Amino acid sequence: MNRFKITELGRDFFWLRDAEREHLVRVLRLSPGDLVVGYDNTGREYTAVVVNIEDKSVTCRILSTDEPDVEAHTSVYIVAGLSKGERMDWVIQKGTELGMAGLIPLRAKRAIVHIEGKKAQDRVARWQKIASEAAKQSHRVLEPEIKEVSDWKDIKGLLPEDTQWIIPYEEEKSQRMAPVLGGMKAEHPVAIIIGPEGGFEESEVAWAKENLGAQSVSLGPRILRTETAAMAALTLVLGHFGDLG
Amino acid sequence: MNRFKITELGRDFFWLRDAEREHLVRVLRLSPGDLVVGYDNTGREYTAVVVNIEDKSVTCRILSTDEPDVEAHTSVYIVAGLSKGERMDWVIQKGTELGMAGLIPLRAKRAIVHIEGKKAQDRVARWQKIASEAAKQSHRVLEPEIKEVSDWKDIKGLLPEDTQWIIPYEEEKSQRMAPVLGGMKAEHPVAIIIGPEGGFEESEVAWAKENLGAQSVSLGPRILRTETAAMAALTLVLGHFGDLG
Repeated sequence: MNRFKITELGRDFFWLRDAEREHLVRVLRLSPGDLVVGYDNTGREYTAVVVNIEDKSVTCRILSTDEPDVEAHTSVYIVAGLSKGERMDWVIQKGTELGMAGLIPLRAKRAIVHIEGKKAQDRVARWQKIASEAAKQSHRVLEPEIKEVSDWKDIKGLLPEDTQWIIPYEEEKSQRMAPVLGGMKAEHPVAIIIGPEGGFEESEVAWAKENLGAQSVSLGPRILRTETAAMAALTLVLGHFGDLG
Repeated sequence: MNRFKITELGRDFFWLRDAEREHLVRVLRLSPGDLVVGYDNTGREYTAVVVNIEDKSVTCRILSTDEPDVEAHTSVYIVAGLSKGERMDWVIQKGTELGMAGLIPLRAKRAIVHIEGKKAQDRVARWQKIASEAAKQSHRVLEPEIKEVSDWKDIKGLLPEDTQWIIPYEEEKSQRMAPVLGGMKAEHPVAIIIGPEGGFEESEVAWAKENLGAQSVSLGPRILRTETAAMAALTLVLGHFGDLG
């Protein structure tokens, strides 16, 4: 069944407007009587029937409400050093499919991308759109939130107090992922800090250890691109906590 | 140090020709006296010094030979249902970085891409180039082999007798990855069979179970794109066997 993000939710009905309405009417060409699924980003999902298509909205009558067990039980965030557009888009799309809870774009020292003010806000809005689209496609009921582009000093305040931080680092040769994951609590969030194309400077890793209690981990001897490292680390964390089947 | 694929290997020297020579001379502008690393796809790596740049080749004197422990100890293959070019390119690039041993492009029933004969050979050559490039970038010393585009009946013959087959399948709701991996032997190869965009037909999964002894596994409740499923499954298998740090 086609999925739509609910624009307005009532007790027995919900309404789809703007892009969601366009998608239903123009792209999918649905009509009154067709069944759809709506979600409102609260974890709930509503099976409904299209009852009326108006100029500016589509009215759907709710037939049943469900809270599908589709979200990861452990919240895993990615803190990603700013990378070239495509890499970041890709981490957000794949990370959303896999089940990340959210992403913080980080101004790392070696970031070759520099965005500030309005430009940074526009970029975040675009990334949020990619996350929302991927959430819909992967049948999630909670869209990952893309946080504002941040500096090192800001990231701690953007995630819960009890967040467990890990920082994959090329120069970390001894600390492996498995024992680090073994020492973590499934009920607390996990944040994976991933460097930009150029990697982290040693001082950044030291800062993360000092100020976030982050543990540096090795992803093995092969050199991974930043987006590959992000996906691998996310997959290993979600897999460890049983959130990838 | 810059890495090059050796064109011809002698006892004390190796030679770089064609694209490798061009890369050294025109792109990196190296000169006699510069140090380089050469690999010959046997698992060995040679530290050498450029001694002479000729019109058609570059001569390097070998200073030391090493067998770096950079390859995964468990051989993991991906059998990938033919997907649109970009997805497959991407699985090959990322899979190579992560450490896959090789890939077999599979003519699955719902494949929307159909390539035969010369066209299939050209595509495989292009994919091999992507794998070789990614192997170099990730500092691997063995390039994954991209096998010929194959039908279901052919794949068993392309991998070792003792290969352990798993097939992630959307309709598999109960069998999780962890217990299946727990029952596998690290010393035998693993092959992950991934469907095309449209997924597998039930009959294909049944065939794989019957004829390959494949175990179907769930990658969780979220719908993953084919390339995301391939990367997630590869990461979980390599991670389980300690081959991702």
